[in-house]
Amino acid sequence: MRNEIEKITISDIARELNITAATVSRALNDHPGIRDSTKRAVKETARKLNYQPNKIASSLRLGRSKIIGVIIPSAEINFFGSVVHGIEKVANENNYSVLIYQSNEHIEFEKKGVKTFLQSRVDGVLASISKETINLDHYREIINRGVPLVLFDRGNDQLGVSSVLVDDYAGAFEATRHLIMQGCKRIAHIGGQQHVGIFNQRLKGYVDALNVHGIGVDDDLILYGKVSIDSGRDCMQHLLSISSRPDAVFAVEDFTAVGAIQAMKAANIRIPEDIAIVGFANETFGEFITPSLSTVNQQTTVMGESAARIFFEAMKTNAYYKDGPRKLILEPKLIVRQSSMKIKKGIL
Amino acid sequence: MRNEIEKITISDIARELNITAATVSRALNDHPGIRDSTKRAVKETARKLNYQPNKIASSLRLGRSKIIGVIIPSAEINFFGSVVHGIEKVANENNYSVLIYQSNEHIEFEKKGVKTFLQSRVDGVLASISKETINLDHYREIINRGVPLVLFDRGNDQLGVSSVLVDDYAGAFEATRHLIMQGCKRIAHIGGQQHVGIFNQRLKGYVDALNVHGIGVDDDLILYGKVSIDSGRDCMQHLLSISSRPDAVFAVEDFTAVGAIQAMKAANIRIPEDIAIVGFANETFGEFITPSLSTVNQQTTVMGESAARIFFEAMKTNAYYKDGPRKLILEPKLIVRQSSMKIKKGIL
Repeated sequence: MRNEIEKITISDIARELNITAATVSRALNDHPGIRDSTKRAVKETARKLNYQPNKIASSLRLGRSKIIGVIIPSAEINFFGSVVHGIEKVANENNYSVLIYQSNEHIEFEKKGVKTFLQSRVDGVLASISKETINLDHYREIINRGVPLVLFDRGNDQLGVSSVLVDDYAGAFEATRHLIMQGCKRIAHIGGQQHVGIFNQRLKGYVDALNVHGIGVDDDLILYGKVSIDSGRDCMQHLLSISSRPDAVFAVEDFTAVGAIQAMKAANIRIPEDIAIVGFANETFGEFITPSLSTVNQQTTVMGESAARIFFEAMKTNAYYKDGPRKLILEPKLIVRQSSMKIKKGIL
Repeated sequence: MRNEIEKITISDIARELNITAATVSRALNDHPGIRDSTKRAVKETARKLNYQPNKIASSLRLGRSKIIGVIIPSAEINFFGSVVHGIEKVANENNYSVLIYQSNEHIEFEKKGVKTFLQSRVDGVLASISKETINLDHYREIINRGVPLVLFDRGNDQLGVSSVLVDDYAGAFEATRHLIMQGCKRIAHIGGQQHVGIFNQRLKGYVDALNVHGIGVDDDLILYGKVSIDSGRDCMQHLLSISSRPDAVFAVEDFTAVGAIQAMKAANIRIPEDIAIVGFANETFGEFITPSLSTVNQQTTVMGESAARIFFEAMKTNAYYKDGPRKLILEPKLIVRQSSMKIKKGIL
């Protein structure tokens, strides 16, 4: 019992030096926010009082867990898999581990993921917000605790944290422009849910590309789908039924494009001769379906690497929430494959 | 300072009752391994001494984190994505969170994942062992700590823990038998690395199906690939170059099958008329490539659910490592699509 009674705590050191216990903790843990002179004083006092740190408690409460928590809507979408690989690459360079939590696009799961990561004392959270999420309080809880939060792909300005996004507007503009350059005149768009920012941006890029090139926008050629193979098939069947058929389709993403291709094949439409098509997101399957699918590469690995780098800079400076948030916008890249290559590549 | 000095600890209760501190902890936490009489004595002594539990420490050291850690080789393979969904389903029913760690098939990452999960105090680990892993010490560390470990898809009898596997032999037998029933006589097999148990089982299922149906095994028709699209393409090119070409291919998994299909298309082979093909694993892309790919469904969601259920039973009994390990073997299901349907389905 004697040892326990006489045990010197951080509070004793704090009282001795007339500073807070938190400052003592940070000084003992070589926190970069503490002046060197303070660190020296704390360490000398600790020695003098024969302070024995409680190693378990200190690693739990003050030290770093060396874990990054990543919240993704779904690991089944290749896009997020690649982003995670980018994060893992930078995490490994810094000797950090990456734990993944899937929200499956549900806010209740997302909340649970945040809680679990905070409980696991991750050093930072990198997240892509679920489509269902409107109330952001669980993300504010991360910020309140001073844990760096970096958003990727799907940002939200209300949170005032750094984010790494891709320029969906520019990607859609480029995809549509490419179809125009291939000689297409009636370019349809199968879009996604318009309350999702990235899908709305892709619609805008499509519309502006048409306008810039003097091709009028035809409302009959714009359909709003549900971002799935089935929905792509249904929308394409509708486009094939109208009197003045399109000669090209810009699909909001690759699954929609695959459904559209299925509908065209069923109707014996030649791709790209009769109707050309471009998707978005560069899912793995795009290069080995027939015809191979032109699409937009969103630089997923770079996105993950960039988000992780922002986190590690925050770890160094320890002033993440003092500096203003940064927004990094990556340029997507068009990948031209068989599904839209009406003119030989050399001519482009 | 006075409160701290007088603070009653678990050790004080233990000394009073002449039992170990660990027993006191467990009694206070209603551990099922402690007799009711002991629990009553401990609780009464705690009250008498006015013991105030340190809630943070007890939740960390003795309580349950309500987290399951899942180690998968890669989230980019649809197979593991579906298994995780099965795990998540059961975890949600039990109000648990699921954190995922990707080993990317490297033992060093796998070790780091184990360390990270133990540090995060997960209540259990469900794992699929990386192809590179031979030394299993990091998994033994989980067992030593009494944390339930359940293996899925890739088991290892040396660890003596429960596992949920799929009968790869039966799946391969069924796939090969199907090709024989379609009238194929020269059925090739593009296999995987033979030190990986599941790939070796698939080879055996193929060989036995041929033998059972009186078709001799032709060594020229067995190639050992590397489980990738490129490798499937290379192996198929070789099969097309031999004097007596195959009329069917059983590919060890779907990516290999896709590569083989690419090589056949490049050589103007009609699928399935000239050469039929069946893959394995039911990757998402299989149903929308041309021709759609026949494959073997490994019941991934059921696998995840079963592994999670074994864990939750262990949580209830708290005797996971006292009972012998269980091995649950799931039956895979053949999915017949265009790539192997030479005879109309009705005739089968």
